[in-house]
Amino acid sequence: MEDRTELSALGEFGLIERLNKDNKTQNESTVVSIGDDAAVLDYKDKQILVSTDAMAEGIHFDMVYTPLKHLGYKAAVSNFSDIYSMNGRPKQITIALSVSNRYSVEALEELYSGIRLACEKYGVDIIGGDTTSSASGMVISITVLGEGEKDKITRRSTAKENDLICVSGDLGAAYAGLLVLQREKATWKANPDMQPDLDSYDYVLERQLKPEAQKWLIDFFEKNGIVPTSMIDISDGLASEILHICNDSGVGCEIYMERLPIDYQTSRTLEEFQIPAETGALNGGEDYELLFTIDQKDYEKIKNNADIHIIGYIKDKNSGCKLVTPQNSTIDIKAQGWNHYNDM
Amino acid sequence: MEDRTELSALGEFGLIERLNKDNKTQNESTVVSIGDDAAVLDYKDKQILVSTDAMAEGIHFDMVYTPLKHLGYKAAVSNFSDIYSMNGRPKQITIALSVSNRYSVEALEELYSGIRLACEKYGVDIIGGDTTSSASGMVISITVLGEGEKDKITRRSTAKENDLICVSGDLGAAYAGLLVLQREKATWKANPDMQPDLDSYDYVLERQLKPEAQKWLIDFFEKNGIVPTSMIDISDGLASEILHICNDSGVGCEIYMERLPIDYQTSRTLEEFQIPAETGALNGGEDYELLFTIDQKDYEKIKNNADIHIIGYIKDKNSGCKLVTPQNSTIDIKAQGWNHYNDM
Repeated sequence: MEDRTELSALGEFGLIERLNKDNKTQNESTVVSIGDDAAVLDYKDKQILVSTDAMAEGIHFDMVYTPLKHLGYKAAVSNFSDIYSMNGRPKQITIALSVSNRYSVEALEELYSGIRLACEKYGVDIIGGDTTSSASGMVISITVLGEGEKDKITRRSTAKENDLICVSGDLGAAYAGLLVLQREKATWKANPDMQPDLDSYDYVLERQLKPEAQKWLIDFFEKNGIVPTSMIDISDGLASEILHICNDSGVGCEIYMERLPIDYQTSRTLEEFQIPAETGALNGGEDYELLFTIDQKDYEKIKNNADIHIIGYIKDKNSGCKLVTPQNSTIDIKAQGWNHYNDM
Repeated sequence: MEDRTELSALGEFGLIERLNKDNKTQNESTVVSIGDDAAVLDYKDKQILVSTDAMAEGIHFDMVYTPLKHLGYKAAVSNFSDIYSMNGRPKQITIALSVSNRYSVEALEELYSGIRLACEKYGVDIIGGDTTSSASGMVISITVLGEGEKDKITRRSTAKENDLICVSGDLGAAYAGLLVLQREKATWKANPDMQPDLDSYDYVLERQLKPEAQKWLIDFFEKNGIVPTSMIDISDGLASEILHICNDSGVGCEIYMERLPIDYQTSRTLEEFQIPAETGALNGGEDYELLFTIDQKDYEKIKNNADIHIIGYIKDKNSGCKLVTPQNSTIDIKAQGWNHYNDM
């Protein structure tokens, strides 16, 4: 980066103004955007979906290998994913940015350019935010608002026995990408002159650094008249998410290990780290795919879509939550999840 | 505090669960609260007001003299104020908390108890949030949602020539309270055995540590059929806020110095610090009073309310923004504002 403008040179108002100077809105529901004490929205007969997620430097991202533009893109997209997972559509976000003066104005503009790119792609308006200095590091907290139709909003607590369990896309890639980045960081620390060769990891790296949300699936549901019986996005790993659905719905499940969708590059990469591909698929976070259940009557509607994978089915509560191996033995599904506070 | 449970002992999900265990909602518009990927709201024919504000340790608050419960209360109330300033009513908040593991679970519960107290008092539901660890310190970022009626939402850009400029309550007290706290901190650092005597500063300290938002004024407007022509809340000081109204509305103003409402304890305290009371009233932040303009036809409706003060009137743009002294000379109003990044 050539230019460096100190944050103190602009002040809080100047900074907010500069970050938002080209802000345009594209949704009819955005009546008033940035520039007053509050934004004004009109959702007419639609219901409002709201979710807040924060990402912290050193916990959710490492500046050594995270380009700021990608970071902004990912922060936005991971929030959109929370709205899609309710079978809704993200429409607006507010951004609360907490940064130390180690960052320049240009760095924050780079971050914002990533957020703006994601917003343009997914049809979302930036309607407000706050920027404050922090003692150290960066925390990006985004609140997303979206619209849903009353009888189509999909909870995680409404799966029923015999429903099919489906997942979009493929799993474990973002985790595989993270492992590669961490290895490269360690290598680079040991020998700063070494140039990393990352060509053969392009897919897993992109999944880690610049993930996408599954808007296409919500479009597909709408077009085909499908309302999933439950849905959740996969941010903490499939195992953790299916347990959320089962616990909240009061049901059990069977997941077939050999049905887990895993990309070839993902399994090859995980192999390098001596991690079974299925473990990465079950416990790796940040895939932002959607895990959902549908009534069996909708089977015909989804069976030919190559990006929807039926991985199991919902059972009664007493059956527990089981993983079925190719050898037909069963294992209790346990959530690994992420415990940020343990790593500090 | 006797008990100390480490954040790592609970993990992220456990912590969120514990902080929200007694969470009850009281608004009809809250359809689904905490516990899914997103909350679900239904505002029916009302418009939605949205605002996000962040408070950072070391910038907006100092743990040495800020009780955690008060901090939570203030963080919530300052956000509610943004909705009242649009002539709306706050209904829901989401909380993004970023904390280092220096804080215990009990400390965060104390913070939450203050947020919850404010929510109960103002009729607001906690509908979501995220808790993440930070490298150091604490950042509390709150997004507030509120409802407003389409033809009654009050912007800062709609003041007209000849409107009366009014302010609720009194000004400068929160700033006076801050000065007292900073002085006590310095004294205590020099001599830790010294017990502070703060009895005679009760009002200014409360205004700094546990401010209130002006719900009563919105009730008063509704009851008396008043729609202000413009409104803003006073978080950065009267001077800064009146300039926002004038600049955004394309008008000028005259403010009469002797009309500025200042409590006796405020002026006495500011005097100790050799600060003219009017300077404190004009440039001191965090009062969370409301600054608004009304059409002169509404004068009769407000003239007998002791908590509403007419401090000037709106003029044409070419007249500029002037402060009129008791000696009838005029001074250009300039915003001091706060520049957080300069202080680091």
